[in-house]
Amino acid sequence: MTEPVCLVLGAGAGVGGNVAKRFARGGYHAVLCRRSDEQGLHRLVGEIEEEGGAASGFLLDATKPDGIEERIAAVEAEIGPVDVVVFNLGAQIGDRSLVETTDKAFELGWRMATLALFRTARAVLPAMAERGGGTFLVTSATAAVRGNAGQHSHAAAMGGRRMLCQSLNAEFAPRGVHVTHIVIDGMVDAPDTLGKMLGEERFAELREQRGKESDGLLVPEQVAETYWHLAHQHRSAWTHELDLRPFSDKPWWNG
Amino acid sequence: MTEPVCLVLGAGAGVGGNVAKRFARGGYHAVLCRRSDEQGLHRLVGEIEEEGGAASGFLLDATKPDGIEERIAAVEAEIGPVDVVVFNLGAQIGDRSLVETTDKAFELGWRMATLALFRTARAVLPAMAERGGGTFLVTSATAAVRGNAGQHSHAAAMGGRRMLCQSLNAEFAPRGVHVTHIVIDGMVDAPDTLGKMLGEERFAELREQRGKESDGLLVPEQVAETYWHLAHQHRSAWTHELDLRPFSDKPWWNG
Amino acid sequence: MTEPVCLVLGAGAGVGGNVAKRFARGGYHAVLCRRSDEQGLHRLVGEIEEEGGAASGFLLDATKPDGIEERIAAVEAEIGPVDVVVFNLGAQIGDRSLVETTDKAFELGWRMATLALFRTARAVLPAMAERGGGTFLVTSATAAVRGNAGQHSHAAAMGGRRMLCQSLNAEFAPRGVHVTHIVIDGMVDAPDTLGKMLGEERFAELREQRGKESDGLLVPEQVAETYWHLAHQHRSAWTHELDLRPFSDKPWWNG
Amino acid sequence: MTEPVCLVLGAGAGVGGNVAKRFARGGYHAVLCRRSDEQGLHRLVGEIEEEGGAASGFLLDATKPDGIEERIAAVEAEIGPVDVVVFNLGAQIGDRSLVETTDKAFELGWRMATLALFRTARAVLPAMAERGGGTFLVTSATAAVRGNAGQHSHAAAMGGRRMLCQSLNAEFAPRGVHVTHIVIDGMVDAPDTLGKMLGEERFAELREQRGKESDGLLVPEQVAETYWHLAHQHRSAWTHELDLRPFSDKPWWNG
Repeated sequence: MTEPVCLVLGAGAGVGGNVAKRFARGGYHAVLCRRSDEQGLHRLVGEIEEEGGAASGFLLDATKPDGIEERIAAVEAEIGPVDVVVFNLGAQIGDRSLVETTDKAFELGWRMATLALFRTARAVLPAMAERGGGTFLVTSATAAVRGNAGQHSHAAAMGGRRMLCQSLNAEFAPRGVHVTHIVIDGMVDAPDTLGKMLGEERFAELREQRGKESDGLLVPEQVAETYWHLAHQHRSAWTHELDLRPFSDKPWWNG
Repeated sequence: MTEPVCLVLGAGAGVGGNVAKRFARGGYHAVLCRRSDEQGLHRLVGEIEEEGGAASGFLLDATKPDGIEERIAAVEAEIGPVDVVVFNLGAQIGDRSLVETTDKAFELGWRMATLALFRTARAVLPAMAERGGGTFLVTSATAAVRGNAGQHSHAAAMGGRRMLCQSLNAEFAPRGVHVTHIVIDGMVDAPDTLGKMLGEERFAELREQRGKESDGLLVPEQVAETYWHLAHQHRSAWTHELDLRPFSDKPWWNG
Repeated sequence: MTEPVCLVLGAGAGVGGNVAKRFARGGYHAVLCRRSDEQGLHRLVGEIEEEGGAASGFLLDATKPDGIEERIAAVEAEIGPVDVVVFNLGAQIGDRSLVETTDKAFELGWRMATLALFRTARAVLPAMAERGGGTFLVTSATAAVRGNAGQHSHAAAMGGRRMLCQSLNAEFAPRGVHVTHIVIDGMVDAPDTLGKMLGEERFAELREQRGKESDGLLVPEQVAETYWHLAHQHRSAWTHELDLRPFSDKPWWNG
Repeated sequence: MTEPVCLVLGAGAGVGGNVAKRFARGGYHAVLCRRSDEQGLHRLVGEIEEEGGAASGFLLDATKPDGIEERIAAVEAEIGPVDVVVFNLGAQIGDRSLVETTDKAFELGWRMATLALFRTARAVLPAMAERGGGTFLVTSATAAVRGNAGQHSHAAAMGGRRMLCQSLNAEFAPRGVHVTHIVIDGMVDAPDTLGKMLGEERFAELREQRGKESDGLLVPEQVAETYWHLAHQHRSAWTHELDLRPFSDKPWWNG
């Protein structure tokens, strides 16, 4: 194959899947990975192919030893060198008081949000640097820039993510790899994540109140446009960090 | 006229002029304002028109009472309602120790970087909000996020700029106006600003060392692409703050 | 005289006056300056002297040309070299929308919060550095770290203050002068500032609800203890920035 | 026993041990815990007792399941309710490139710096809140506020620590527990940590160059004074975050 490859980890029906579609539309072979819902994965791959794009889909448990490393090796061997990685694994588990937060929940947040990012980076950035460049886009959250009550697991995991991104950037930007930390500071209109967390009914209500009509939820197709832009910034003018939120939402610093 | 209007304050041969060109290329009537160098201004307007774009140019002293307000009123009356403002006035005067920084230099920094921004905002944002939307892109600098020795005037002015942008955003984003604070965290390959500050010889040397070949200076044409993108983000996914720097530069937080 | 001198600019009945008292109690000659209310000034000086402390009081308009510089020169000539400066001038004018914020209000904020700080610093820091050391404590506000609707003047002024403090620190810390930026992130139980802004009745109500009993307002005597501590940190372990708020208040980043 | 209890986790010969001494001198029963070096632990306890203070010492492996929880339960049962916790475990392993950072090193950083903090917090904060108050002082590092090349493990762990502290503060400050995140932004003159990392010879050299004479290393006895102050701030004026560095060091934001 000759298309450049865009690997999306966490390719659900929200930001991940839509970024995959955007890159496929732009001529990339989109490789979609997600933990579960094989049917949903095939549907996304199918939708891309119907539009005339190139895509592959794989189930991937990012917390499994070697799962990430083996998947990346296989993609590079069978599809082609990865040009763009979109790391889109979240670790939001809803609000829990400190005593209700188990060691297991705390550790799982870290495994998904921080360790998986580290392992992905180590599996692709050195090769990108040797090939002369690449792009590593990391979806992040409000919890990366401020802790909040009930967010013990999520904030610790995402705070780690942000500092890790700065650390990766310090080592790899001078070697031509563009690392970006994208602070999604609002709720995304995404059935696979927000939808599951809220439950069908509350999600439907929220969409009714704040959704498509009034643009009070982040529309994933629109978020994808900014990911596309970031991946195509000239190396003389790279962004490392930016925020994204609906116009009607208060930024995190205003509460 | 029927094109949307993009008003650029600080339209020299660096970021400002190139953003004007980018918006003209995208179908906007570009209105270029700068303090001095009428010849340079006409050259920029001419270059846009040669490419088939629409442009107007005006000399404007942003520190003069009512200068900004009258220019904006005239543009709205004679050319059309302003859709996009690019506020690109800088206030870098090079490093000076505290005792070498006069009241006049300190005040001038504030008049250019902070007060002029406030006056521009007050002259356009309420009208934009009433018309249902608009975009207000503010070029800023490293000095907005960290003070440094010798930067007393510049850091105070730019620190004020950043907090003012957050304050403007808090009032106007919910009313449909996109306010963005763009931290240019590096040296721009711009003869009108960096060139003048360094002098012809040192600027030529710097370009030789870090310039076009090795992309160690921000290339203004490339910076302009990000301004264009920001102005066209969907209101469900707006960026308020982002940084831009050459891949080979250390971010401000790494020194 | 032989006591070290602590000069307080903005010495009302809140933080400023109480810091003056704390330093007088610790053996300093406290020099209290404030814009108006000569009677209140004399009362504070009298209270210090009754406790056996040394104090002087002066009315000082910080926005008057040379007012600050002449006062500092007179203090150094007549009382002694200044060891500690507490810069405590505020610039909060309450919330105003952008269109309601006049040029005059915007400029006044800057003159009080930013320019007066710059002028004070230039009048004392170089002399402190030559004498081998000194302390420069700057009271600041939430508006220095986040802008908010209606805070256009205040946020611009305080954002400038914060970056100026970092710039002063970069030049003078290595020369032995301790510069500290103190973010007061809450309402202070201070009749001269909060009291005046709210009016007598609302202030009395607020004190009733959140005041001394429940410690929901910053108690200025207690704030003064932290100023004292900062001024006496060993130079191997200096603080440049810290926040202060009542236990029951949300920090600025939590809204 | 009737003294209030101050529990120090990470009580070596640097910050931890000296904070323990400071609190013992102020009338607390100091409980010192550290992973290894029983002899060093006994020496510290002995030094406190010789001064007339009360102290106990325990070896504690913070990465062992239930080790922290059991130690805290035993302290509360046998010595008394814990009033102050000083969490002083570090996770600095020196600079390593991404490929040289193993999963094990990355995980160990998190177990020491983030998970152990979470477990400690969960074991003491709810009880403190029920008793009406307490203090939780967390030593942190530059890596909590900016990532750097080679700091992948440390920055991820400390970034998590900082956001976790904000999250703990949001839940527990309104319930009377003072949580503070202390950014130690420089090298501490500590044989047990810096000394071991550098080796005996380089540590001796560094002390010679930057040490006691010129105060270019943080002196742990002096750092302890600020911990003491923080633990005794009145609840109307609490600090959540502050930085500490030698006067001659550049702050992290200045590189």
